[in-house]
Amino acid sequence: MFNGIYTPIITPFCADESIDFGKLEHNLAKWGETDLDGIVVLGSNGEFVYLSEEEKFSVVEFAIKHFNKNKKVIVGVSNEATLHTIEAAKRAAGLGADAVLILPPHYYKGAMKDEILFKYFSDVADKSPVPVMLYNMPGNTGINLTSALIARLSKHPNIAGIKDTGGNIVQIAETVRDTADDFSVFAGNTGYLMPALAVGARGATLALANILPQECCQLVSLVKENRIAEARELQLKLLRINTLVTGKYGVAGLKAAADMLGYEGGLPRRPLLPASDQAKEEIEQELKKIGVL
Amino acid sequence: MFNGIYTPIITPFCADESIDFGKLEHNLAKWGETDLDGIVVLGSNGEFVYLSEEEKFSVVEFAIKHFNKNKKVIVGVSNEATLHTIEAAKRAAGLGADAVLILPPHYYKGAMKDEILFKYFSDVADKSPVPVMLYNMPGNTGINLTSALIARLSKHPNIAGIKDTGGNIVQIAETVRDTADDFSVFAGNTGYLMPALAVGARGATLALANILPQECCQLVSLVKENRIAEARELQLKLLRINTLVTGKYGVAGLKAAADMLGYEGGLPRRPLLPASDQAKEEIEQELKKIGVL
Amino acid sequence: MFNGIYTPIITPFCADESIDFGKLEHNLAKWGETDLDGIVVLGSNGEFVYLSEEEKFSVVEFAIKHFNKNKKVIVGVSNEATLHTIEAAKRAAGLGADAVLILPPHYYKGAMKDEILFKYFSDVADKSPVPVMLYNMPGNTGINLTSALIARLSKHPNIAGIKDTGGNIVQIAETVRDTADDFSVFAGNTGYLMPALAVGARGATLALANILPQECCQLVSLVKENRIAEARELQLKLLRINTLVTGKYGVAGLKAAADMLGYEGGLPRRPLLPASDQAKEEIEQELKKIGVL
Amino acid sequence: MFNGIYTPIITPFCADESIDFGKLEHNLAKWGETDLDGIVVLGSNGEFVYLSEEEKFSVVEFAIKHFNKNKKVIVGVSNEATLHTIEAAKRAAGLGADAVLILPPHYYKGAMKDEILFKYFSDVADKSPVPVMLYNMPGNTGINLTSALIARLSKHPNIAGIKDTGGNIVQIAETVRDTADDFSVFAGNTGYLMPALAVGARGATLALANILPQECCQLVSLVKENRIAEARELQLKLLRINTLVTGKYGVAGLKAAADMLGYEGGLPRRPLLPASDQAKEEIEQELKKIGVL
Repeated sequence: MFNGIYTPIITPFCADESIDFGKLEHNLAKWGETDLDGIVVLGSNGEFVYLSEEEKFSVVEFAIKHFNKNKKVIVGVSNEATLHTIEAAKRAAGLGADAVLILPPHYYKGAMKDEILFKYFSDVADKSPVPVMLYNMPGNTGINLTSALIARLSKHPNIAGIKDTGGNIVQIAETVRDTADDFSVFAGNTGYLMPALAVGARGATLALANILPQECCQLVSLVKENRIAEARELQLKLLRINTLVTGKYGVAGLKAAADMLGYEGGLPRRPLLPASDQAKEEIEQELKKIGVL
Repeated sequence: MFNGIYTPIITPFCADESIDFGKLEHNLAKWGETDLDGIVVLGSNGEFVYLSEEEKFSVVEFAIKHFNKNKKVIVGVSNEATLHTIEAAKRAAGLGADAVLILPPHYYKGAMKDEILFKYFSDVADKSPVPVMLYNMPGNTGINLTSALIARLSKHPNIAGIKDTGGNIVQIAETVRDTADDFSVFAGNTGYLMPALAVGARGATLALANILPQECCQLVSLVKENRIAEARELQLKLLRINTLVTGKYGVAGLKAAADMLGYEGGLPRRPLLPASDQAKEEIEQELKKIGVL
Repeated sequence: MFNGIYTPIITPFCADESIDFGKLEHNLAKWGETDLDGIVVLGSNGEFVYLSEEEKFSVVEFAIKHFNKNKKVIVGVSNEATLHTIEAAKRAAGLGADAVLILPPHYYKGAMKDEILFKYFSDVADKSPVPVMLYNMPGNTGINLTSALIARLSKHPNIAGIKDTGGNIVQIAETVRDTADDFSVFAGNTGYLMPALAVGARGATLALANILPQECCQLVSLVKENRIAEARELQLKLLRINTLVTGKYGVAGLKAAADMLGYEGGLPRRPLLPASDQAKEEIEQELKKIGVL
Repeated sequence: MFNGIYTPIITPFCADESIDFGKLEHNLAKWGETDLDGIVVLGSNGEFVYLSEEEKFSVVEFAIKHFNKNKKVIVGVSNEATLHTIEAAKRAAGLGADAVLILPPHYYKGAMKDEILFKYFSDVADKSPVPVMLYNMPGNTGINLTSALIARLSKHPNIAGIKDTGGNIVQIAETVRDTADDFSVFAGNTGYLMPALAVGARGATLALANILPQECCQLVSLVKENRIAEARELQLKLLRINTLVTGKYGVAGLKAAADMLGYEGGLPRRPLLPASDQAKEEIEQELKKIGVL
């Protein structure tokens, strides 16, 4: 069972677009000292779609090797073809992943009916050596995993949870209602972390936790301890910086913020471009405003 | 300032499509005995778009006359033209409305930029004798009032709050963050009542409160008293019936449910059709399942 | 049967927001001398949603009285409630309308299933004294009338055609394929006039024909005469000005262009605002560029 | 310069999900005898997203080797990262591709602003040894290449055209208007082939041409010869089968239809499933109805 806060780690690149493993190592050490429950390697904020197959697993291997052994590592293994996702899940498991995180295939949007998706996730879960965490990310995939589909999939013994980045709090509540207590419903964005916890989410996988892991973990503690007013205050405080480094400036903004907070963001890979000076300025102002810089 | 739970009351029709004032009177008496803070007349669930101008104000007059004088009455006065909305606001105020609820104009969706909407609501608020409550309902209007626009409008001395039926919990949280403490942020649907309260909403205007007013009011109390586990349980319990009488079967479903629970739903007006037997059966089952029937 | 080019006439307003019947009369006389087959009164470009019920029919009466008796007048009678649409159709017919143009009801988007819409249009067509023209306008209504629904409705003896402003050329082609030869399939925007005619549309109702009626009529003639290269050239030439006075600057832009071309645009009614100087400048440049100014 | 009809060839799979090169060879021979101007390898209908990198280029190599040397071969080389697309373009060119077809990167939808896309396509075109054809496919990517962006990109000496599968006929017309005469504007779906040709498209890349290449080519000839009535008739006749093998049943439907018409469809790769018996029956009926079976 998965609980608490995970961060989908950024992948720093050098000026020549190669992976900057030195910076990655620095970050892994730093995250390892926080209260994070674990990391997600090859998540959306890891620019996994910009990595070759070989690069992907070199990052996985490196991250598992250099990260705190008392924490968990979930690996994103999304592919369009069933057989490729299965291969990737096996490879990740072989490298020591605790679980794999899997998007629905989404290129042929019109064909991805619930029955196709049910069979896809079931086929993969049947073969994956480690538990599967579903990954709902309609903003990037154009496909929503409904609470009804999630509930059906949750009965598979090797499907352990869902990261829901859809932002529909009713759907998250329905998922909590319709799945067993040991199914890990995770929020996928800090913007609705507190409300998701309020309706029963067990944790979250948060881009913002790359740079503000302790604040994210603290919010979980406050809700657990029923300190609702304080939790609300912290939630409201984190909203704007979260918007800047996820929605507004995306991965490039997140990397720029990482640089400001003692992490090593490195460069994004093309077609993404580094955050502009204006974006950096706006991010810096907000970090100062909330007192973390 | 507005707080607590309001319900946008249904308008019962006779078989000949005329308004059934007898049934309306029955319902008003019954709602008046609950813990509701007030009602909304001519809201979306009141089928206001199916009423002629004269019918609209006959319903307003009747409702104000027959409803508990210790509770508040908000009147929907949305029109497309600025001057018609102002006229309707004046007329509602003249009949005793405590506030008016106003949608953005939305026929010319492409033209409804923030500047146009800002001027529209400001012009109306300048002239309305009673406070204005903004009404965000993108599902029906195709237009979202952003938290930035709401924050600007909240500074108008005669704009008192917002009913946000967009379902975007991040936007609700941003609105709470960016408006003064006496600006009434209201959730617009029971599906996210508890999370909205958790992030700071002061109340809600809920279709479901037509038929289950006490349950809705109880949820507000539980959150206020920090009884989060109980609040969550109640929130999850109300999700499915709420979906049936709002999303899935809409006003027709809500009227059918009203009939089952001692209210008088009456018929919807065409083009809406009464709930089918199958819909009624599904609603009845769910009402029994949650123990209110 | 309806053929050729109609224009949904603009409604000029005075500075005090009252209807400027003098300007309307000027325009009606001018349109009456063109090759237009007719006009549509109370269409989207007529700001019908900003008119009171009484104003609507005063405009209809005035337009029918002052327009060329050898041309046709179609009147928009869209309402949300079936009974109101029927009333308006009867009233328009009583004033001399040749047909009525009707949008699907659209406030309760989720409830407007095909069966509801089929019954709505059938109920109205049963009672309307004059033929009904369907009006598909998903950009404003959020609802698309599918070609399958249109085909079913086309069998009603009192449903004579459709104005399709959806812009989906495949749907227009399907509608031509699936309806009888005497069912009038009309394009709803100049942007796809030539392609619509190419796949079999019989005519069009065009905002642009308010200001460039002869060019629109000429395009129909060119396609009829199989002068495809010339038709294409004219179609491409009209694209940009059409975008400016429909999509980009909407009714306000159309009214500004009318003023430049010898028509009397008058002001829009609030919340719409008059075209800005920058918008007027852009429109003027384009009118000069295509040689009509 | 590219003209006429290309088909994005299907990739037949065996029961064990390996590529069925025997069936591919059969099809290549058959397509080579038609009037097709060329084929697209690794297009959407080729299930390119389900192929590993090595499989992709084995298919390219095989197709170029076995296809009619007098016709052209365009190769899809879309990747998310700029550097991977460049690598793939070079590899395709090395194998003999006449051009490469490239989608916009689309995973980070929010970040794919026009400036990013302009730089992406420019960077790739700078390095590609063969001409680039842009590929607009918003249905699958969630991103639309606007006519303004296409016009800017069309000035690059190594960007030769666009396949536009967006279905917006106004955008296709704008693209024709705003690009030079030697820029190849191609329709991307048979549903709007004739209207696209009418407004000036030079050709098309059509899934339907996998199974009905001669009919697609004939439609181009009819428009060229100004035989508009016949062209319209053929366009209307092809609409339904086109919907069945693209929209409704997708690649699986197309493969089933191929089997019926003397081609070898083979199986799709998971998560796609073979067409159901009901789908096959519907496709067969339509093929009979239009007289090709």
